[in-house]
Amino acid sequence: MKQAIYFDNAATTPLDSEVLEAMLPFMKDTFGNPSSNYSVGRMAKLGVETARKNVATLLGVAPATIYFTSGGTESNNTAIASAVLDLGCTHIITSPIEHHAVLHTVEYYCRAQQVPFSLVALTPTGEVDYDNLETQLKEVTAAGKKVLVSLMHANNEIGTLLDIVRVGALCKQYNAIFHSDCVQTVGHYPLNLLESGVHFISGAGHKFHGPKGVGILYIHAGLQIEPLIYGGSQERNMRAGTENVYGIVGFAKALELAMNAYEKESQYIARLKAYMKQKLQEVIPGVGFNSPDNSLYTVLSVCFPKTPNSGSLLLELDMAGICVSGGSACSSGDNSGSHVIRALQKNEVCNTIRFSFSKYNTKAEVDKVVGVLEELFSLQEI
Amino acid sequence: MKQAIYFDNAATTPLDSEVLEAMLPFMKDTFGNPSSNYSVGRMAKLGVETARKNVATLLGVAPATIYFTSGGTESNNTAIASAVLDLGCTHIITSPIEHHAVLHTVEYYCRAQQVPFSLVALTPTGEVDYDNLETQLKEVTAAGKKVLVSLMHANNEIGTLLDIVRVGALCKQYNAIFHSDCVQTVGHYPLNLLESGVHFISGAGHKFHGPKGVGILYIHAGLQIEPLIYGGSQERNMRAGTENVYGIVGFAKALELAMNAYEKESQYIARLKAYMKQKLQEVIPGVGFNSPDNSLYTVLSVCFPKTPNSGSLLLELDMAGICVSGGSACSSGDNSGSHVIRALQKNEVCNTIRFSFSKYNTKAEVDKVVGVLEELFSLQEI
Repeated sequence: MKQAIYFDNAATTPLDSEVLEAMLPFMKDTFGNPSSNYSVGRMAKLGVETARKNVATLLGVAPATIYFTSGGTESNNTAIASAVLDLGCTHIITSPIEHHAVLHTVEYYCRAQQVPFSLVALTPTGEVDYDNLETQLKEVTAAGKKVLVSLMHANNEIGTLLDIVRVGALCKQYNAIFHSDCVQTVGHYPLNLLESGVHFISGAGHKFHGPKGVGILYIHAGLQIEPLIYGGSQERNMRAGTENVYGIVGFAKALELAMNAYEKESQYIARLKAYMKQKLQEVIPGVGFNSPDNSLYTVLSVCFPKTPNSGSLLLELDMAGICVSGGSACSSGDNSGSHVIRALQKNEVCNTIRFSFSKYNTKAEVDKVVGVLEELFSLQEI
Repeated sequence: MKQAIYFDNAATTPLDSEVLEAMLPFMKDTFGNPSSNYSVGRMAKLGVETARKNVATLLGVAPATIYFTSGGTESNNTAIASAVLDLGCTHIITSPIEHHAVLHTVEYYCRAQQVPFSLVALTPTGEVDYDNLETQLKEVTAAGKKVLVSLMHANNEIGTLLDIVRVGALCKQYNAIFHSDCVQTVGHYPLNLLESGVHFISGAGHKFHGPKGVGILYIHAGLQIEPLIYGGSQERNMRAGTENVYGIVGFAKALELAMNAYEKESQYIARLKAYMKQKLQEVIPGVGFNSPDNSLYTVLSVCFPKTPNSGSLLLELDMAGICVSGGSACSSGDNSGSHVIRALQKNEVCNTIRFSFSKYNTKAEVDKVVGVLEELFSLQEI
């Protein structure tokens, strides 16, 4: 197969070779169980605890507030379950464009525990309508309910960003618990969680050149919650199961690399995105964009005009060795199309393709992809 | 540090270098998200599905009954939660010497759902009293309850084995759901799950020279259950979250290697265990064994006589570079001692140490460890 062009970094990212190097000693000699009280175990434990300390420092919080999980989905599940089961939340406010790891979890716990949820209104560009959020918080709180607000920091399909500090302040005002799915922003933005007023955030290593199968859940120091997964006393009795030591070490290394290079890499990727947007506007008549101007710098969601054959765009791009997606990879087993694009009422007018970039992408790759798209659309117009 | 002697393979095992080799391509070029519908994603998907097929074949079941999880603990939690929440189980029969990943999970769901549980009686050597199990099944079923029986295949601390076919037949007779924590036997024994009559089994990669952070849950084809972790449609909507592709590939490779070499390696390890038992009997007056004769070939739980200083045995062994444990690594955050040894009423008479072996251990290591123990006990007698 010819070398693929990978523009789907919001789905997953290649592992950084430096991250792999950091993981390998823990896949070889330092193989111990971190719970074991002897040399080989203590060295593994040191790897896990050093990782926790580094991650905490990079996120501006205390190490004891960082819990390692199997990924962003488990982190989201833990936060939502505990808000309902342990923290007394009797109403959930979320948005129609959350990742399914939040939406389906909210639906499950609300059904199982008979807790209602409501969806915040969105602006036409898919951003949270903060006035509506405050109205809902005011009304629900006045009715004597305790609220969980679960709103993602950056949307994985269209890249809209949440003003996390603003929502944190609103939640504080209404004594609500605030969870933010930060899977697209941990490793992509500097985050200072203490300042943000958030109670829970979720992150996933594989979204920023770290390993799959490992994530974090930040839990604000004041909260007492129960585990989602019971058993041994790992993670200070909060997440049972032998720690994925190499995954944890890799997560921390990937976050360290990402944050050290943040200024340079984020500007580089933002320029790639802007360049692609400009080139598409030049060559595809009627092209539009689902990502607002001030969106996640890694994601460009493009609204291609509907043409007789544009339904096969993804297939054509794949055949040209170009890896992009119609929406979230996690929903690809679901045939009903993107719930995000549907919520924005764009599914009738757009053939949506998400392009998402990383530090490994180049301007030459953008040129290649735009060239293939230009050709596909010129053929379709015949 | 001098080369450690690692006799704690029931806690975790070193990754086999062939397993690492199988994982590395998925940590480098084949980095895609298995849910992505393009080349790089399909190659990752192929890795996952080939692994599933190989694991299923080795366990004598259909691929669609094997679900990949983050480890044995998550698998145990999923099985127990679904038995209570989805399959209508209104009573749980388990044993006092299950791993905490079962016991604490049973305690949680029984408390949360107001479902009683009872503990099966054990023989003096820690084996399940099958007559008592049948009596309990008969009584509880006669009272109109649907029962979940959760009994581990091999005890992780003392190595007692369950007659899984006998328990499967009993469960069938009383229409009970049967879950077996097989974390110590997957990769250590040939298992034919269809023949065993079990509904759920749990396995963990890192117990047989596979990776940490990955496990399996076998779910009998006839059962309809809900996920423990909600979100995307991975694992046929049964376990959300981007798949730990390299972990899954490593799990399958480790199982394949283990089963291909089963005859040879199991005999080799059994001989090491028998040799150590014999040597200890020769040099430590009053030594006894918590592992019955017909026990898991990897585990030798030794009852050392109590002497004034024998409480520091583990520390002394660690200082001599010998890695062994007092019980389960997963319970080492818990200071109350082993619940297994307590259930067997041996904590007053024994200083228990678990020695657990792998294919990488040698007779020379046994000699070294026995020599150190002999010296420690001779010093203690002065």
